Order: sequence, then C-alpha cells, then structure tokens
Amino acid sequence: MNVPVTPGTRDLSTNRDHALARFLGIRAQTEALSEPLSPEDQTAQSMPDCSPTKWHRAHTTWFFEEFLLGPQLADYRSFNPDYQFHFNSYYEAVGPRQPRPHRGLITRPSARQVGEYRKAVDRSVTDFLKTQPAELPQQVADVMELGINHEQQHQELLLMDIKHLLSRNRTHPAYAAAPEQSEPRQSKPMNWHDITGGITSIGHSGDGFGFDNEFPRHQVLVPDCQIADRLVTAGDFADFITDGGYRDAQWWLSDGWAWVQNNDAKAPLYWHGDPGNWQLFTLHGSGPLDPAAPVVHVNYYEADAYAHWAGARLPTEAEWEVAAASSSNAAETLALHPAPADDSGDLQQFSGAVWQWTSSPYTAYPGFRPAAGAVGEYNGKFMVDQQVLRGGACITAPGHSRDSYRNFYPAAAQWPFAGLRLARDA
Amino acid sequence: MNVPVTPGTRDLSTNRDHALARFLGIRAQTEALSEPLSPEDQTAQSMPDCSPTKWHRAHTTWFFEEFLLGPQLADYRSFNPDYQFHFNSYYEAVGPRQPRPHRGLITRPSARQVGEYRKAVDRSVTDFLKTQPAELPQQVADVMELGINHEQQHQELLLMDIKHLLSRNRTHPAYAAAPEQSEPRQSKPMNWHDITGGITSIGHSGDGFGFDNEFPRHQVLVPDCQIADRLVTAGDFADFITDGGYRDAQWWLSDGWAWVQNNDAKAPLYWHGDPGNWQLFTLHGSGPLDPAAPVVHVNYYEADAYAHWAGARLPTEAEWEVAAASSSNAAETLALHPAPADDSGDLQQFSGAVWQWTSSPYTAYPGFRPAAGAVGEYNGKFMVDQQVLRGGACITAPGHSRDSYRNFYPAAAQWPFAGLRLARDA
Amino acid sequence: MNVPVTPGTRDLSTNRDHALARFLGIRAQTEALSEPLSPEDQTAQSMPDCSPTKWHRAHTTWFFEEFLLGPQLADYRSFNPDYQFHFNSYYEAVGPRQPRPHRGLITRPSARQVGEYRKAVDRSVTDFLKTQPAELPQQVADVMELGINHEQQHQELLLMDIKHLLSRNRTHPAYAAAPEQSEPRQSKPMNWHDITGGITSIGHSGDGFGFDNEFPRHQVLVPDCQIADRLVTAGDFADFITDGGYRDAQWWLSDGWAWVQNNDAKAPLYWHGDPGNWQLFTLHGSGPLDPAAPVVHVNYYEADAYAHWAGARLPTEAEWEVAAASSSNAAETLALHPAPADDSGDLQQFSGAVWQWTSSPYTAYPGFRPAAGAVGEYNGKFMVDQQVLRGGACITAPGHSRDSYRNFYPAAAQWPFAGLRLARDA
Amino acid sequence: MNVPVTPGTRDLSTNRDHALARFLGIRAQTEALSEPLSPEDQTAQSMPDCSPTKWHRAHTTWFFEEFLLGPQLADYRSFNPDYQFHFNSYYEAVGPRQPRPHRGLITRPSARQVGEYRKAVDRSVTDFLKTQPAELPQQVADVMELGINHEQQHQELLLMDIKHLLSRNRTHPAYAAAPEQSEPRQSKPMNWHDITGGITSIGHSGDGFGFDNEFPRHQVLVPDCQIADRLVTAGDFADFITDGGYRDAQWWLSDGWAWVQNNDAKAPLYWHGDPGNWQLFTLHGSGPLDPAAPVVHVNYYEADAYAHWAGARLPTEAEWEVAAASSSNAAETLALHPAPADDSGDLQQFSGAVWQWTSSPYTAYPGFRPAAGAVGEYNGKFMVDQQVLRGGACITAPGHSRDSYRNFYPAAAQWPFAGLRLARDA
Repeated sequence: MNVPVTPGTRDLSTNRDHALARFLGIRAQTEALSEPLSPEDQTAQSMPDCSPTKWHRAHTTWFFEEFLLGPQLADYRSFNPDYQFHFNSYYEAVGPRQPRPHRGLITRPSARQVGEYRKAVDRSVTDFLKTQPAELPQQVADVMELGINHEQQHQELLLMDIKHLLSRNRTHPAYAAAPEQSEPRQSKPMNWHDITGGITSIGHSGDGFGFDNEFPRHQVLVPDCQIADRLVTAGDFADFITDGGYRDAQWWLSDGWAWVQNNDAKAPLYWHGDPGNWQLFTLHGSGPLDPAAPVVHVNYYEADAYAHWAGARLPTEAEWEVAAASSSNAAETLALHPAPADDSGDLQQFSGAVWQWTSSPYTAYPGFRPAAGAVGEYNGKFMVDQQVLRGGACITAPGHSRDSYRNFYPAAAQWPFAGLRLARDA
Repeated sequence: MNVPVTPGTRDLSTNRDHALARFLGIRAQTEALSEPLSPEDQTAQSMPDCSPTKWHRAHTTWFFEEFLLGPQLADYRSFNPDYQFHFNSYYEAVGPRQPRPHRGLITRPSARQVGEYRKAVDRSVTDFLKTQPAELPQQVADVMELGINHEQQHQELLLMDIKHLLSRNRTHPAYAAAPEQSEPRQSKPMNWHDITGGITSIGHSGDGFGFDNEFPRHQVLVPDCQIADRLVTAGDFADFITDGGYRDAQWWLSDGWAWVQNNDAKAPLYWHGDPGNWQLFTLHGSGPLDPAAPVVHVNYYEADAYAHWAGARLPTEAEWEVAAASSSNAAETLALHPAPADDSGDLQQFSGAVWQWTSSPYTAYPGFRPAAGAVGEYNGKFMVDQQVLRGGACITAPGHSRDSYRNFYPAAAQWPFAGLRLARDA
Repeated sequence: MNVPVTPGTRDLSTNRDHALARFLGIRAQTEALSEPLSPEDQTAQSMPDCSPTKWHRAHTTWFFEEFLLGPQLADYRSFNPDYQFHFNSYYEAVGPRQPRPHRGLITRPSARQVGEYRKAVDRSVTDFLKTQPAELPQQVADVMELGINHEQQHQELLLMDIKHLLSRNRTHPAYAAAPEQSEPRQSKPMNWHDITGGITSIGHSGDGFGFDNEFPRHQVLVPDCQIADRLVTAGDFADFITDGGYRDAQWWLSDGWAWVQNNDAKAPLYWHGDPGNWQLFTLHGSGPLDPAAPVVHVNYYEADAYAHWAGARLPTEAEWEVAAASSSNAAETLALHPAPADDSGDLQQFSGAVWQWTSSPYTAYPGFRPAAGAVGEYNGKFMVDQQVLRGGACITAPGHSRDSYRNFYPAAAQWPFAGLRLARDA
Repeated sequence: MNVPVTPGTRDLSTNRDHALARFLGIRAQTEALSEPLSPEDQTAQSMPDCSPTKWHRAHTTWFFEEFLLGPQLADYRSFNPDYQFHFNSYYEAVGPRQPRPHRGLITRPSARQVGEYRKAVDRSVTDFLKTQPAELPQQVADVMELGINHEQQHQELLLMDIKHLLSRNRTHPAYAAAPEQSEPRQSKPMNWHDITGGITSIGHSGDGFGFDNEFPRHQVLVPDCQIADRLVTAGDFADFITDGGYRDAQWWLSDGWAWVQNNDAKAPLYWHGDPGNWQLFTLHGSGPLDPAAPVVHVNYYEADAYAHWAGARLPTEAEWEVAAASSSNAAETLALHPAPADDSGDLQQFSGAVWQWTSSPYTAYPGFRPAAGAVGEYNGKFMVDQQVLRGGACITAPGHSRDSYRNFYPAAAQWPFAGLRLARDA
C-alpha cells in the first residue's frame, strides 16, 4: 500500500507511546459520545446525508483495519469480512459497499457487536504498536495520525447526525441535559476589522498534521477589505426573517430562491414556533432561541442571502484565513451549542463556535496532489459544487481544526453546525 | 364511540373469561414472534410499505387504548399521549400521525419501553374486563374480537416486514433456524377440478367474526369452470423463467410489462443466483430453491403473466370461494415457509400455504356498509386499485383466516407471502 | 396476419361501397377537427397522457397501413418506414416506438407532411377497396370497421388533448367560437329511477361492431337498486365544494385523499376563480360556470367522494347498462361542452353528454378472449387498475358509442370528459 | 429604470446610426438562423434546459420592449401584454412568467405572429432611435449594446437547443447541408506552451462592451505552468474511451462517477455507433466522427476525467486568459461544427471552435457589483455551482466573445458546444 501521507506532514511526532495514548484517548471519546444513545438511536438513519451512530463507530474502526492493520500485518485476518462491505464509506478502490442511503438497514451487527469490534481492533492496534520501535516508522506514524483525525471528523458527524435524527422525533428528546444557564445576554454590537491586502501565504504551514487539501501552502493576492469581529447572531438573523427575507427574491442566488420555494423555507433548520417567539431545537432539547448566540444550521444560500440583505458579503477563504491569524480564541472545549461572543471587542469566534461559510468554492490549491492509493479519495474527488467552510464548531473535537483547515459542504446543506461572518470591500 | 361491529358478528361469543384468555394468548404470541429480534432489528424500516417490529408491537397496543379503553373508561389516561401520534396507522378521524415512510425514525420509545407499554395496556385491559359481567356487553365483545383479529393481522405483517428487512442485509441472516428437512420431493402433477356454475352465495356466513368487507353474504352467478387442485410451485415458475417469461411482452399486462422493465425483474422476490442454480432467501436464511414448494413472493403482474403463459387464468374470488368449500385442509400450524402439496390427489392448499392472487379487483360487495366511526376506515377506503387475495399463508396466525376472508394488495406488491392457483373456463 | 375480428362482429355489413364511404367520411372528419389548429398547436404535448393532434392524425393513418394495407397487399411499400416508429402507439408485437412522453418532440414530419401522408393512405385504401368484390371478404370488412372505430376514438382524444393543451396557455384560447347561448337554466331536480334486480344479460348483443372487451354477452345478477334520472350537475358539485368536500377526508378513498393533498385539489379540472364566482375553461374559452350543465372533468376519486357525500354511490357497470336500456336519448350531435338535462322527467343523459364513472374496475368478462395478433393488444392488456366508464360524451363521434361500450381510465384521470350519475341500494 | 450599464462600458460608441445598423443586422441574423426551421421545429422544447426557437425569437424582442422602449417612451404600449408573461426568462423583479420547463406549450402566439412581433418592435426601436440625437445618451447606447449582446447569446442558444431537439428525432435531420468536405486530416501533435507566472491582470480592459461579470479588471497571481497549444480532439477522446475511461472510477470526480452510472454514460453527447466506428450527429446530420476535430459536447465531469487520465489538468480561468493573450486566432466566421487545428504550431483555437471548461468555479471577481435594476439579475445570481468556460464556439456570433468573456454552465451540462484544453504545472 502506498503511504497516505501528504506533503508537509513529515515532521509529525513519531513517538510510539504518544501515538498509542492519543489513539486510545480518541477511541474512548467516540464511545463516550455514543454512550447516551440506545441501540435503536444508534441504528436509524434520518436522511441519506446522515449516518447511524453505530455506523460511525464501525466505519472509523474499519479504517484502521483497512489502512493500518491490513497493510502492516501480513497475516492479519479481518474481524469480519462482511464489515468491509458494510462499513466502507466511499472508497471505490477498496470495493463495493452498502449504498449510503441504506446504512440504516444494517441492523446486524448490533450496537453491542460493534462495541466488540471496536475493542478487538483497539487491541490489535495496541499489540501492533507494541511491536514497533519507540520511534515509529514514518509510514506507521502517518497512518495513525490520519486515522485519529479521521475519527475526530466522525465524532463531529456523529453529533450532527444524531441531532438530525432526534429532531425528527416529535418529542424532541435531548441528547444531553443542558448546562446551567447563564443570564441571557444581548448581542454585542458588530464591528469591522480592517484587513490590509497584498500578497500573503495561505495553506498548511507544515507544522503538525494536515489534510492533503490544505497543501501546498502558497501565495495568494488578498484585497484590502473588512471583516466582522464576531459571527452573525440568531437575533441578527431573526431581523432578516422579520424583514421578509425569505419572501424576497432579490437577496437570493437563483438556486437559493428555488430552494426556498421548493422547501417552503421560512427559517434556519431546527427553528420552530413563530417570529416573536422563536423556539430552537438543540442537542439539549427544545427551548427559546438565544438571540446572542451565533446563528447555526443555515445553508450557503441562507448565509449568502443574509449577507446580501445586510449590505455585505461573505469572506473568501483567503480573507478568512488572514483574519483568523490575528484573532484571539479562548481554549477549545466541546459544547453542544455555540456560545455568544464576549464583550472584549476582540476579533473572535474563529473556532469553537460554528463553521463559517466562505464565498470560495472548494477547489484544489495550485500544485495540489492527492495522496497516493485509496486514501487519495479522501478529499480531491469532492472538488466540485461544494463551498468551503472555515473555523470549527463547538462540536468539533478540540484541537482537531486549525486556521488552514478546509471543511466543505454542498450549498444546500443545513445540518452542519454552520453559520457566517460578514465581510465587505474596503 | 360507535361500535365497530359489522353485520353478522352479533352471534360472537360474549364469554368474558374466554375473551380474556384469547386476548392474553394473542398478546403473548406477538411478543414471542418479536423475541428473536434485537432492538436494532425491531426499529429499522426497509421500505415505506413495511413497518418496524417495534411499531407493530406498539400499534396493536394503541388500538386497544384507542378503541376499547378510551371509549369504555371515562377516566382512562393514555399511557403516553405522544404514542397516539407515533402509532396511529391511518385513521384520519383520530388525528395526525407519524408519516408512514418515517416509522423507522421512531427510535424512542425503545423496544424495551414498548414492552412496558404492552404490559401496562395488557393490565388495563385485564382490569377492565374483570369489572365486566361474565357475559360481556356486545360492544365490548366486538371490540375485543376486532382488536384480537387486528393483532393477528399485524403478526403476519411483522413476519413479512422483518423478512424484507433481513433480506436487505448482505449476510442474509436467518430469523429462525430451519426445521429438520424432509427429503426434497418432486412437484406432484397438477390436476383440474370441475366447478359447476350457477347461482350461489359468497361472503361471510355470520358464524363467528368477520371483517366488514366480507359482508353481506350475497348471491353471485358463477360460470362452469375448472380450478387447479394445487398451487403453482417454484419449479413450475422456474420453467416460465427458463422459457423467457420475463423477456416476452405478450404474457404481461401493460402495467406489468412496464414494471418488469423499470425494475429489471428477472425472478420473484428473494430468488437469487441463476437459472439452474436458484437460491432462495427465507426466514430460515438462504438455501437452494425447493421446486416442490409453492412459488411465493410473486406480485399480481407475475401471477397473471404466469397464468397467461400456462394457457390458463387466475380464478375470480367467487370461483375460489366455491372451490375452497369442497377442499380438504390439514390443521393449520404456523410455518415460516410454505410446504409442498401432498400426494393425496385432493383439492388442497387453500389455506396455510400462501395467499392466492385472484383476478378480482377489491370492491364493495352489494349492500356493503362500512362500520361506523373511525374503524369504518378499516377496509372500505382501500377499495380501488387493489386485487383480492384469498386463502391464508403459512405465516398467517392459525385460525385467523377463513374461506370468506378477503385480503388485498396493490398489483405490484411482492413482499406478501403470495402465490397463485390456476383456473380455466370449462 | 391474424384477423382482428372479435366474436359477434361477423354480421357486420360487408358492403364495399358503404365501407368506402364511411371510411372517407371519418377520415375527412378528423381533418375537419384539426382544421382550426395551427402547425404549432398540432405539435405540442401538454402531458404524457396527451398526444399531439398531428400524432393522432398520423397514428390513425399508420393503423390502416399496419393492419390493412401491409397484410393485404403483398407489394405494399410503407409511405415512410420511420413512421412505424413515430406513430405506433403501444403495440409491442409491432416493434419499438417513440416513447409516449416524447411525442411532442416529433417536429418532423410536419403537420403538412402528415396531411400528405393521410391523403396517400386514403388513396391506397381507396384503390385497394376498388380491387375488392362488392361484398368484401369478412377479414377486410372487419379491419375496415376496426380502423374506422379506432379513428373515431382518436377524434375524441384529439379534442380532449387539445383542450388540455390550450388550457395551459395563460390566454385560454378558444378552439371554436361558442354557439349562441340559450338562457341559463336551473338544474332540474334529480329523481330516482327503480331498477328491478335479477339475472339479466349484459355485453354486446352481436348486432353491429363491438370491441373485444364487450364480449361475450353474458348473464349477470343485478340487485334491486335505484339510479338517478340525470347526471350530477356543476351546480350540485359546487355545493359539495362549498360544504368543504375537498377538505374532509371522510368522503374520500385513501388514494383519493392522498391525491387531493399531493395536488392541492380544490375543484374539478378547468375550474378557476373562486366559490361564488366559478369560471370554467371549455373548448369555447373561459366563462362563467353553468350550474345546470353536467359536471365534467372529475376523476374517479372525486366522483366517488361526491357520491359518498350525497349519501349515495356510483352504479356498477351492469346496473348502468340495465338502466340505459330503458332510457331515452335524443339524437347525437357533436358538441364541445355537455348540455343540461331537459325537463321531461325522463331517465336521460346516458350518452352524448359525459362519460360516467362506474364503481366497476375494468376486468375481463367471463369467457373473454382477446383478438388474435397485434390487435389483441387493443384492450385486454389494460385490465388492471382502471375503472369502467359508460355512456359517451358530447365530443364522442356520433354513433360511435352504445350501451355495451366500455371505456376505461385510471382513477386519477381528470382530462377525459367524465362526470357521474348517482345510484343507491333499493 | 436604472441604467443597465456596467463599470468600464462608458467608452462605448454612442453613435446613433452605427447602433441602429448593428441592431438591424443582429435582428436579421436571428431571423436568418430561424429560417430553415418549420413552425413545428420552432415550438418544441426537448428538455427543460432548452428553449424553443420561437421563444428565443420572442424573448430577445421582449428584452428591447422591457428594458428600452418601456423605460424610454412614456406612452409606450406593449405589443401584447401577455408576452411579458410568456417571454420573460428569469427576471423576478419583472414579475411572474411561464415556467421554464413548459416553454414548449406556448403554441400561441405562432411562429408567424412572433415574426410580426419582431417586426413591430424593430420598427418601434428604429422610430425611437430616429428621435434621438446623433450621439445617443449614454443610457440609451448602453441598453442598445446590452440588447444586441443579449440577442447574440440567444443566437448561440438557438443553435444549441435546436441541435438537441433534432437529435431526438430518430431520423437525425440536418439543420443545414454540410459544407464541401476537405480531406480528413490527422490530429496534429499537441505541444506544451510555457506560461511564466506572476502578478498579472485579468478581466475586461474597459475597451468596448463587457458583461458585469467580467469586471472589475483586477490583479491575480498566476503560477508558472504549461498550456496545450491546441484543443483535445475527438480522436484523443476516443482513446480515453478505448482505454476504459468511462468504466474506471479513479479518473472521475465523485459527482462525475455518479453521473456516469446514473446515465450509463459511454461517450460524449451525440456520439453513436461503436468504438472503432463512431458516428457523430451534428447540425449537418449524422456521419463518421472526424478524429482531428475538437471533441465537443463533453461536460465538466468528462473534461476533468479526461485531463486526469491524460496526466494533466484543466487550466484555471486566469491561466487561460493569460495564454489567450499570446495566441493567434484566425478571423471568426460562423460554422456549425468546429474545425481541426492547423499545422502552424501556433498556440491556437482560443475562440471560434468550442467553449473550453476551466477548473474555475464561477464566482464574483473581487469588487464585483451587479448592475442596478432588473438587469442586475443577468449574471450575479448564478454564481454558485457552475464552472467557467472560456473562449467561444464555432456557433458563437462572430465578434461576440473576447478573451475576458466568462461563460458558465453546471458541471453536468453536455449540450453546450464545450470541449477542453489541457494544462499542467510547470
């Protein structure tokens, strides 16, 4: 097998014990996230874009079998040969697989059996690492790193997907109890931050892990512009709705207006109730909308329409990355709903709140090379008809994202934890 | 509430203790059928026509709450008010409900909670019956009888639906181990049985329970004709396939030919492998096709095309009912796959094997009156674009069906345990 | 070629000169009906169920080539071999053909070229007949008769289809100027006519031409019942709407209620405006609804729901045929919209107004045999999921229909000139 | 009305007589292109993306009424008020309109009436211009220019759309006779041309007319790279097919592979026959594929897959525009199929052959401002999920395109005259 490394990841730590500890920690975290969910919750699939919890747990496990254990161990016998079919996501090079819209039909293996699968593979990986030198071969370190990052991505998907499933239950069950509530605050006023244009570099700096789509770091020409110091809030967005935003074609892209009409869209996903008394479903159940919190679960059409209405625009991904470099961010902790901006006046909320739609379609950086082998299907083959989102959400695994991280979704997707930050020409 | 009785059911037993014993027996049987299935198996929905096991268990329970406990007990408090939404099937008069294609999203209540729901309602029904006189009021006896028959119908649906779900799993898991196999037998030759035409009566005789659509018993004019003494076998049907049956438009109804082409149909549902080596998925898992067993899981198009190819036709429901009256049937026992005909030369297999497509569209008998109230939605509103099937299948609850019983499905449905018997003009 | 005759048609006139005169008259009538329509009007297809005028003109011509000239004349060369592909409707035995939904893409041949095609085939048929004896061979007489009746059917379809197309133009153009308007009249009161039940015969008597599906004439058992002396009027139907008929599930079949909701149905096809001020689009353009005229362009769901709401039901086709035998009908003349009942008190409007939905699904009569050869595809292969309509419409070719005539459409079809007559149990 | 000018167009000629002459010439050209087409040909719509010829003729006429005559003439009465509904394309600000997929149902007005409409508007524009000063007011000159360019775009669409319609006719009729055929030539070898990277400017220079999406001219950073001196030929593309290109997922974007499978794609649009004997339908009818001519009617997925297979990539639009600046192009003449490259060794075929897919998604240039008023809907609202194409096709109106011109289509579109040119990193 060709090693799934990407340029710039060569200086990753190859310390074996560190790798093993990180691996076991991430694996335990996935199980902790699944713990509140019943076997039934873990099996259902609420739409083709979503996957069952159980599937996420198994797929991330299969990844280590397919890309680490199989290639590294000549005599490795897969835990269950059918699992390759059930839990391959989209790797054409690896063979046929369960059609994505039918992942909810995999009632067997059970959630419990998936737990056993996870434990068995954890043991195999642990045993394998213990046979390795204290400084891991680069290939091994790279696959471990990729597998860990891959599993962190699925931790976020697991939460996005279970939120969608629970929202479809008329009782709006909570995934977890709400934290003690602080006093509701008003949105702090939004201020503009100046970006001085010129030639600058974006992309992964080569320090630590990065996905292939963040490479190579390269020069770009950024114009003078301004960027908002905080995210657009739910209260801001409610004003757009009150002003008839969903009924006025002038704010919308043509595809966006068709989406509004075909879906009879009137508010972001998970909003219910009425203007004046908006309710919001979150992973804590349903309750009154907090106007100071960032708006979340808007798609690209909604983000673009809001920006247009507000007399602004979305930033490009280069503008965003330049601004992020001078922002302040508190330490990241996992939360199930994004928190309001603080009153510091800082340029803030670049990570840990919501993914931020940019005006940049998802394309290859100049000189981009997909990784060799099956993992080369990881990113490059999705480079059409998607928009880049930057930052990271409250449900993103802490430490997983970074300023150069490029997330991407189709323009119509509402179920990611995505919001927006405004920009405008200087 | 208007009493959901139908003409002709007035002479049903009103013995309280008998009703209670039958109720508890049927309720326990549903749980026994569910027992081999995990919470995951019980939650998934493999197509909009199918419902999850858990849903069947809860819906049959809701039926007793909605039509017995609520109307009879002034102070009855429903076990959980949300369950009316979740587990109402199609009663418009009762209110809104979970859309049928999304029954698989009801991960909560869990399978265990549904078990508790069942126990609680069983207790409430038991407690209620114990307050009643030894001879139940007719209204109460009628609803008990309807609820019991309704639950028996869902026991069959439960098996049909779980078969479809398990078939979608690439490992083809068995619902239950296969019984000890007797020696494979050849199909016994088919013989024609003469029916002498004339005016005769069909429909429910008034002796025991019947659904409203079996009433009133009425006169019909039946032509002289002949009817096959046994069902068409899997081996017979394999000959049709070998002869190019699925590739020749001349045998097919126009809608049927469109169905063949749109679905690239090549064999009945659950057949796999190739001509010469047909394999069959049953509730016992996959194995070689038994040519002597009745063909099952053909839709109306396939049944009609086969009959056409065989130089015969399907019987009308009146012809079928007349023939059934002179047939011999062994005692009914539940089985998960239909057995071959015996060598007796008798007119046989009218019940306990497979439902038998008739050429009769499903319409009202002359003088038909739907039951009053919400249960009036039970049968009458489906009287368009469906075909009548007669008999009863191996998975039908023993004692549930009868010669006047009218089952019905759309022409394209393959997932019922349905086959066919030939007829021809005299 | 097998002769496309049907049992009972043997006593048709075989007089050559008569056949030729009828042929030329019918052919001229088709051209007269097309005359108000531009080449553009004749080419467009407004939905898959409809065909372009030009297609009807060519298809009826192809029919004489395919079933008369080709089989009878050893050296016949088709006018244009591509036309068999373009203008075959559904005869699988004849070969591949233009997909039905794409008939509107056949811009070539032009309307003018189709006219030349018609003239050429008219000449060939005329020349051929002149070579025949004064008493035609039965085979030839039969095909001539079938071709003439077939073309009459397409004359009606031509008007139905062009009405649908013109209705889709926002200017609601008239196909023909309205006749001088008589004074609007009130609906005459509806009265019930008694039918005495018993064994009677229905089906074609053998006197003159009949389609295969009208044969064999056979005995049926008809119950005592009552049938309305006139059709349901537009005014009657407006009362149903005003009473909330389209908003109340209790009146509707389950499939009908789904149709109402999926189509947001609020009134019959071609009604616009509002209750209290209904406007109607007809082939004379748009104008105020005449409440005394029969309601037309209701589908089976609407007809059944209306009957249910009115405390009645639809007649079976046997009941209808028995009633028709004792009705009085004025001489038939072609009209573009149905006229109100007269005040005679007679049992009336059995033909010449609108096709009348019956509660009978379209099935084979006992002993039915489809005609041999490709024309055997004419009727039998549509015998599933259709309802029988009886009578004949104002746009039906005068003399074409008869009491035993069985028209059929799917339950959801609104574009035929179809209405209803009530019946009820005695 | 706000003037539909765009920055940089201020220096357009305002000479009245010149504008009038160009107007009349372009208008006559549209009629000349329609001349070979019958009323039937001009009415049909072969898919929602295509519009009828008659519609193009009327829509371009409506454009002058809506944006010139109405705003400029206080007492202007529209030729027919219904035409605003029928012939508005997508301007939400102008009001409701015929749904795009149903343009083929507009049988009235007829093709002849559309001709009268065109003549009437031509007269009105001529009369209006004659009242204007010899140097037109800038507003008037701008709208004339926009209307002329708009009509040229529709001249190309007219040819694209009629090609699609004629291709659906099984006789594959020719729009026009083929020109005298020169000797078939082999593809000349492809050579790489070096582009030296750095900061450069792209976008409209301000010299002459441009659409708003070409502005503002702005600096971009272009990498060192290489670009092919000629287009990919049909022969090149046939090699890809022969090598199994349509059967190997590795070459395709994920969406592209889904497109291949859903459409059973095996070759570009309009190719038929088999490998080894490819036939091509063109506006000259069907005939053998010329391997030396550019491949045309590939979509973005096919272009990208070919480039990947060839070890290269598509150019960005900036790379393309830089290369175009140093290319040589012969004088443009309208042709119905693209010609092979010449043997000069020049960097060639940048215009006049086929539109060339670039890897650049269609987005706003930095500082982009849509035109004010309804014409602001011209370009900006389509800036999502489309790819930029550059160059110009053989059917593009001569003189219409330019190096800064940005055409755009969704990735799946095959019916434009689109091909590709390869690029690669230096």
